[in-house]
This record gives sequence, structure tokens and C-alpha cells, in this order.
Amino acid sequence: MLKFIENGTVTSVQGIEAAGIHCGIKKKRKDLAVIYSEVPCNAAGTFTLNKVKAAPLIISQKVIYNKNQVKSVVVNSGNANACTGDSGMYDALVMQSHSAQMLDIEKDEVLISSTGVIGEKMPMDNLLDGIGDISKKLSTNGGHNAAEAIMTTDTKPKSFAVEVELEEGSVTIGAICKGSGMIMPNMATMLAFIATDAKIETGLLQKLLGNAVSKSFNKISVDGETSTNDMVTVMANGLSGIEIKESSNNENKFFEALSALCISMAKAIVSDGEGATKVVTINVTGANTENDADLVGKFIANSALVKTAIYGCDANWGRIMSAAGMSGAEIDPAKMSISFNDLPILKPDFSLHLNEEAALKILNQPEYQINVNLNGGSESSTWWTCDFTEGYIKINAEYRT
Amino acid sequence: MLKFIENGTVTSVQGIEAAGIHCGIKKKRKDLAVIYSEVPCNAAGTFTLNKVKAAPLIISQKVIYNKNQVKSVVVNSGNANACTGDSGMYDALVMQSHSAQMLDIEKDEVLISSTGVIGEKMPMDNLLDGIGDISKKLSTNGGHNAAEAIMTTDTKPKSFAVEVELEEGSVTIGAICKGSGMIMPNMATMLAFIATDAKIETGLLQKLLGNAVSKSFNKISVDGETSTNDMVTVMANGLSGIEIKESSNNENKFFEALSALCISMAKAIVSDGEGATKVVTINVTGANTENDADLVGKFIANSALVKTAIYGCDANWGRIMSAAGMSGAEIDPAKMSISFNDLPILKPDFSLHLNEEAALKILNQPEYQINVNLNGGSESSTWWTCDFTEGYIKINAEYRT
Repeated sequence: MLKFIENGTVTSVQGIEAAGIHCGIKKKRKDLAVIYSEVPCNAAGTFTLNKVKAAPLIISQKVIYNKNQVKSVVVNSGNANACTGDSGMYDALVMQSHSAQMLDIEKDEVLISSTGVIGEKMPMDNLLDGIGDISKKLSTNGGHNAAEAIMTTDTKPKSFAVEVELEEGSVTIGAICKGSGMIMPNMATMLAFIATDAKIETGLLQKLLGNAVSKSFNKISVDGETSTNDMVTVMANGLSGIEIKESSNNENKFFEALSALCISMAKAIVSDGEGATKVVTINVTGANTENDADLVGKFIANSALVKTAIYGCDANWGRIMSAAGMSGAEIDPAKMSISFNDLPILKPDFSLHLNEEAALKILNQPEYQINVNLNGGSESSTWWTCDFTEGYIKINAEYRT
Repeated sequence: MLKFIENGTVTSVQGIEAAGIHCGIKKKRKDLAVIYSEVPCNAAGTFTLNKVKAAPLIISQKVIYNKNQVKSVVVNSGNANACTGDSGMYDALVMQSHSAQMLDIEKDEVLISSTGVIGEKMPMDNLLDGIGDISKKLSTNGGHNAAEAIMTTDTKPKSFAVEVELEEGSVTIGAICKGSGMIMPNMATMLAFIATDAKIETGLLQKLLGNAVSKSFNKISVDGETSTNDMVTVMANGLSGIEIKESSNNENKFFEALSALCISMAKAIVSDGEGATKVVTINVTGANTENDADLVGKFIANSALVKTAIYGCDANWGRIMSAAGMSGAEIDPAKMSISFNDLPILKPDFSLHLNEEAALKILNQPEYQINVNLNGGSESSTWWTCDFTEGYIKINAEYRT
């Protein structure tokens, strides 16, 4: 049994404190967040596949790869500290060590992350003063402030927590995330910081996180871009006393809860996509291989023509076919069928069942499903996308990311 | 010596007639074009890689693969005859055979092509009557009308012709093309119909066309889509009496002319990209392999974030770096340098030379170059892209393609 906690966030997890403040990297809005665990945590992370990696990401990657126990994540928004060379790497190391000092923990127990403009020097005075301030403001209900402080072009903060009933009692997983533009497979392609009170070994935690990310954050598209700074981390402090062992019932239930949490975050990111007005779930079924199902879903989710048709409430199944056709997947167009929610649009042999009026009723909704059945094999894949609007252009023509 | 013919078009080539009329597939604008050669031609073609292929494309592909000699290309706009199943294939066969009858030639001497809305039945009455009418209107100055008749969301017709001086005299290559949205590698991804009076063997013609397409039409991006109907064909009627032999000087000069013609068409398509206000040439140099150079160019040309920055006249080199980083090419970000025209923006080791004022002067121009040097090896690649504007969204949210 898993249930979402109303108004849940990363500090819904026992032993987790957080805070979010304004330190002057952005003009007015909050721009610095800290998540802190009172006891050391096993940690796992997934990181951008972009070859241009920001300095703080490289440092956090090292912490995760070394399997250090961690106690804190320190995140600033407004400046990505990416493409900043040796001096950017130095600044990131100072960000990490100063955070450790202020939080009275070890340098290697600190994960750091930055998001915002690429290629500008981090305003270190503001950042270091801010870290001093924020470390005195940590509280067990600071999660929502932290969520606010990691936003860039997001229009709303994003927090979730889920509680899962196991035999020995219940375990909580909470998280904050951000991301609206630059969202695409492969990989995290946004920031998400997860905490749990489950007791779980580092290797297993890494495996479960990887699998959960691949069916959530790696299945969403806003504009087909991946950034230099994107990461998802999870800290497990074990304070519930409940252990998640490999190949146990607990593992299945914990994974289900972690996946549900990640999918909620992924959908929240898509629905807050830059300029987005609609969220569409794309269910691809009947593929010969999982890879084919994935390719078809990805190309439909990323297609500028499909995304503008979604915006225009246009039952344009031809663009869906065309996107599937350019995906590289093995498909037989004459076998394919398409429906919007339960409404058949196209049946095999290109037999058209387009009731424009009924279709329009669905397309006018803020959220619906496009179901594409390849009618070949039995593999499937689910993706989420948003529409492509003038708002996206406006935001990205005017905002320097 | 090659020179572009002022106001040149496909009928600038001797022995080539053409016409373009309105036959009622579209409401008002011209929608049917014929190109006709008075003598049989060797022919070559490249076709969309999209797995969803329109019926007329499948038929033309067969004509080319069988190495038939051809005398005519018949093209309609307004209806793509794609995703129309068996009845669409039947309609396409009728389109071909009726054209042959009206032009008094063999069925296998007719290439056919369609562009427009996917998934709707071709209005055959209009089309067949139109073919009857147009076959009486062919003339040696009908090229511009034909160019107009193949337009869909294009805002202007696109015609070019080039004359190349060879030892034995001069040879002419003329063409019409269309395309504005749905433009992307790989492959033709638009329509172009080329004719020449050179005498050239089919195999060599196919090779030269493939190479010219790969450095022109396959190097442009409007929105990263490929369509179900895209093709480029060339007909060579030999009326100049000048032969282009393999591995000759003539071959080099002819290829140079064919490439220049194709690049002019490719740039015209990009500059007429849906909603586009700017054309940007992307020169990638210093790559270890040609494939790496291509990947970097392609990802920059296709990036929604780069394209919105071009629209916003934002000297956003970070997005260029990020696009290069997600291309999958082997790059070392710290080695890269970037310039806009001759103005250095970024030098190796992330040393920034961003003079915002000087950059803005360039970015405000309707056409400029982004030069990206990977400073690795010696391979290079040139791409063309346009900006991404509210106009694109508007056109594609409202127009059913």
C-alpha cells in the first residue's frame, strides 16, 4: 500500500531538515536551498549524459561514485557554474567545503548542485554568505522553501512525498524537484533531490534509482534538450529502521513507491513545461522490442509538429504517424492504430474513425492520452509530453539560460 | 566557371517545358505542376527515410530503382496521399497512368509526387481533370508557375538555375523546390525537381545527386522533422550533347554546379522556414571525424534553445556548448572556441571574449555565421538553420499538415 502525503515534501521524511533563502544570485527570488539529514545517509545519483558537465555536477558525481555517505545537498539557482573552466571548478570546491564547514560535517558528505545561466562566474560572495545564513535556518518543515529556491523558469515549486506500508512498518520517501525547459531523455535532465528513511545498501539504492529514473524522468520531453547540470540524487538515512533487502518483497514495494514518486515529479515538470498548457500521456503498445516502443514514444513526445498540433487541438494523427515513421523503430504503418483516450482515431489498414467533434472534446482537455498500438509484438512504453506554444518561444528568446 | 542564371528555373534547361495550375485540391492557390522533357532522360532520386512513405513516393522510387528513362514529373500540392492505404496506392497509380496518357508517353516514364495533408483521400476528379488541362499548357517558360504550384506553407516559390562552362561548351542545371516546415536530416525532407541538359549515365547521376544532397538538403533544419513525401529527383536529357564521364574534369565541374544549386535551394528553404526571420550558417571545424563534425552541427542546428536564442538575438554561447555536448560527438568542452562571423565569443579554456554590443550587431543581421571550432582534428561540416519564432507555433497549431 502506498499513499501520497498531502502537501508532502522532502522534509516529510524523518530526520530530514531543509531551508530555502534568497542570497542575491537572483535579483529577488529564493536562490539557495539546503537539505540536511541528522544522520549519515547512503546515497545514489544519476547525472546528465551531456558531455559538457557543470563543475558542481562533476564534484557530486565523484561523491556518489566513491560511495561516500552523505549528510547534505546544497543547491543554488540563478547560476549554473557550467563552462566556467578551472576557476568554476575552484568555486564549486569552495562551495562544497564552505558548506561542510558551516554545517559542521565533512566535505565528502556534501553534494552540491547549481542551475541557471551557463558561462557566468558564480557570485561567490553572495553564495558563501548565503551558505552561512541558511545553515542556521534548517528546519523539519523547510522542504517547501527549498523547493522554491531551486526553481529557474518553473512557475511553481514541486514537492512530493509518499508513504509505503511494509510488513515491519512504514517508510517515507520525499523529494523536491525543478525543471521546465531543457527536459528530455536521456537522463535526469532536471534537478530532483530525494530522501528516505528506509535502510538500504548503496548498490541496491543506485540500481532502484536508475530503474525509477528510466521510467519517469527519462520519459518526458519539453523541448528535446538535455542540460549541463541535470541530476537526481537520493539519500537514505535508515531512521525508519526498516531494511530494504535485494530480491525481497520490501524491494518491490519500495521500488514501486520510488517510481510513483519519480513519475509524479516527471509529470509535474512536463505540466510546468515552458509555455505549456497541456500534458499528454503517450502509450505505445504492441512493439516487437522495448527499444522500438521507446523510440516511437520518444519521437512522438519530442516532435515539434505533434506538440504544436496538441496546442492547436488538432486531431492530426498524420503527424503522429510521421513521427513514428522517423523514429527508426521497426514499424508497419498499415498495422498501426491510434486512439485519443478511448476514442478510436485510426484502425489498421489506415481505416479512419475520425469523429472530429468527439476528438475535439478530448483535445480541449488539459490532460489526455494518445494511445499508439503498433500491433506487432507485446512490448510497450509510456511517455509524457506537453504542447509547444508561443509561450515557450517567448520565454526562451528573452531568458538567457 | 559556374554562374547562376538570373531568374533561372527548371525551364532554363533546353528541351524542358513546365506548367503550374490550380485544379481545385487547394481552395485558391496553384496546386498542380508538370515538368516535361521533349526527349527521354536518365534519372536519379533520393527519397525520405521515414518508414511511413506516401503512395506516390513508393511509385516514383520504383521508377528510379528500375533505372527507367523518364520524360515527366507530375506533382500536386494540398494533399500528400500518405497514410491512405490500398485506395491511396490505387489513386497514385491512376495519377501516374492518366498523366502518361495525357502526355502521350509511357506510364514508366512518369515520376509522381504529392505534398500536403496526410491521411485524406486525394480528390481524384479534380486531379485527373487538372492533369488533362495542364498537359496542354506546358511551355518553355512555365518553370516559375510550376514552382508556385508545389508550395504548401512556403511563402515564396523557389527556382534556381546554374550554367557551368566545360571544355566542350556549357551545360545548364535548373530546378524548382518547396519546403519550409518538416525540414531536417536525414534526407531530402522536402521536394526538389532538377533537370539538366548534360549527357550523363544513370549510375553516375545517382552518385552525384546523393553526394550533393548530403551536403545541402541533409544539412538544414527547420524543426527537426522528416516527412512521408520528401524526394529530390534529377532528369538529364543530354540535349547539350556534352557528356559527363566518371572521374573526368567534367564530373568535378558538374558536381560543383549541382552542389551549388542544391545548397542555394537548401538555404532558400531554411530562409523560408515556417515563421523564420533569420538564416544562420553553422560551421563546425576541428573535429576528429566527419561524423563528429556532423553530429555537432546537426545538434546545434536542431536545438530549440539555440533557435530561440537566435530569434531573441541573444549571444547565448552556453546553449551552443550544451547542444554540442548532447550530440554524442567526442568533444573536449575546454578546447572549444566559438565565434559569430569574425567576432570571437569563446576561446579555449572557457576564456570568454563576449563583447555584447559587437555581438548584438551581428545577431541583429538577417544572416550570419556561427563558427564552432572543436580544436581536435581536421574534419568539418557546414549546416544551415533558421530561428524558432511564435510564427512557427502559429502556423503549425492552425494548419493541418
